[in-house]
Amino acid sequence: MKTVQEIRDAIARGEWRKLTAGLAPGFIQANLVILPKQHAFDFLLFCQRNEKACPIIDVCESGRVAPPLAGPKADVRVHVPRYRIYRKGELLDEPGSILEYFNDDMVSFFLGCSFTFEHDLMAHGIPVRHIELNRNVPMYITNRECRPAGIFSGPMVVTLRPIPENRVAEAAAITAKHRKAHGAPIHVGDPAALGITDTQKPDFGDPPEIRPGETPVFWACGVTPQTAVSRAKLDLVITHAPGYMFITDVPDTFEW
Amino acid sequence: MKTVQEIRDAIARGEWRKLTAGLAPGFIQANLVILPKQHAFDFLLFCQRNEKACPIIDVCESGRVAPPLAGPKADVRVHVPRYRIYRKGELLDEPGSILEYFNDDMVSFFLGCSFTFEHDLMAHGIPVRHIELNRNVPMYITNRECRPAGIFSGPMVVTLRPIPENRVAEAAAITAKHRKAHGAPIHVGDPAALGITDTQKPDFGDPPEIRPGETPVFWACGVTPQTAVSRAKLDLVITHAPGYMFITDVPDTFEW
Repeated sequence: MKTVQEIRDAIARGEWRKLTAGLAPGFIQANLVILPKQHAFDFLLFCQRNEKACPIIDVCESGRVAPPLAGPKADVRVHVPRYRIYRKGELLDEPGSILEYFNDDMVSFFLGCSFTFEHDLMAHGIPVRHIELNRNVPMYITNRECRPAGIFSGPMVVTLRPIPENRVAEAAAITAKHRKAHGAPIHVGDPAALGITDTQKPDFGDPPEIRPGETPVFWACGVTPQTAVSRAKLDLVITHAPGYMFITDVPDTFEW
Repeated sequence: MKTVQEIRDAIARGEWRKLTAGLAPGFIQANLVILPKQHAFDFLLFCQRNEKACPIIDVCESGRVAPPLAGPKADVRVHVPRYRIYRKGELLDEPGSILEYFNDDMVSFFLGCSFTFEHDLMAHGIPVRHIELNRNVPMYITNRECRPAGIFSGPMVVTLRPIPENRVAEAAAITAKHRKAHGAPIHVGDPAALGITDTQKPDFGDPPEIRPGETPVFWACGVTPQTAVSRAKLDLVITHAPGYMFITDVPDTFEW
């Protein structure tokens, strides 16, 4: 079993350019958003106001490359296998390091993702269908607006997981404990209440397979802050590429 | 029973210049910190990193006077009975309104306070000694450093409440539910572990009365962010005067 730092070092050397799911089991993986300091207060406030969609794991002060809690020895410029560079909301590049883009004016945000609670669901014997089927989770843009903050606004994006009806309560209780990984479901049942007309046509990811005796359960999704950032069309934004996450030093079991 | 807005209006007219404890029962009261926008990101990050001591109820964007969740019809400039004005960390004035100090560059932060969990403890029949004795809660500067953020740093300040030993577990569980009011205790038992040498000599407030069969229980305290702000010696900072709180529209039972 490699340590988190050994995995990061391999990523920095270019030896791991693949998805990070399953790497460093037991440690939280994080979404990454890096943007100019002038917009950092607005974005931090947006995350604070929309905590279920944007749970903050850690933040680096401008120019800093090591998140003090999530990776005090890490370097945010080289420890993600694939980044995305956006200018004015347009995807410009998907590099394996951001040494040429990062500067002292940039602030890095590390946001929780659903890997953590999915592991816990499976540990309790609750099926997570898209993982069973080796697909991407279905994601939907909802009719619920986030609480805006400064220049940032947008709809809440959610994920759907079909859960056996007799285990919905347990799934809700298990995920509620993971408030830095989107927490409890925001909705159980009728997709129309969220403005979703056809669950078989997700806005992102693969369609769900909902079996007899299962209910669609919806959780807030980390694509929400990405959407808000994209709509703001900033001069420069750097994120991880979907599924190519930052691996933190924080254990799954950390008490926030 | 007056509504929250009626109470605020009375405060704005100068008809209530007293402590706010007991006003508008059932609604959260908040600590207030107002500071220049240039330091707002650092302070929001300080609060995020030290959530138990600095639970964020709401924040106004710069120049805004109504916190969108805590008081969408409120005016932060006139709805607190007594303010404190600090320049370079020195107390300058204790006015009943801040119309002459507030400007478009100021960002207002509303932080949770312990009133909420004290009500819940009493509702469960757990004694809150300083309220029984009509004293101020004892507060202590500890040997624990907060996680710093930008220009803000300082020790964690805690409150002490003596709790009957057979009810400590229940008191911990009850307060844990109030994570926007300092949450669960940070320490139970020996004060020396926090660097407190004599509980009878608190740094702020009145000495505790610890009776046989009771254990000292320590919670993070809202004086922590005030201490961090004071140490930063900013050009201008506005706070509420201790005990003269901002009354929010948020019910005690709000699910965060």
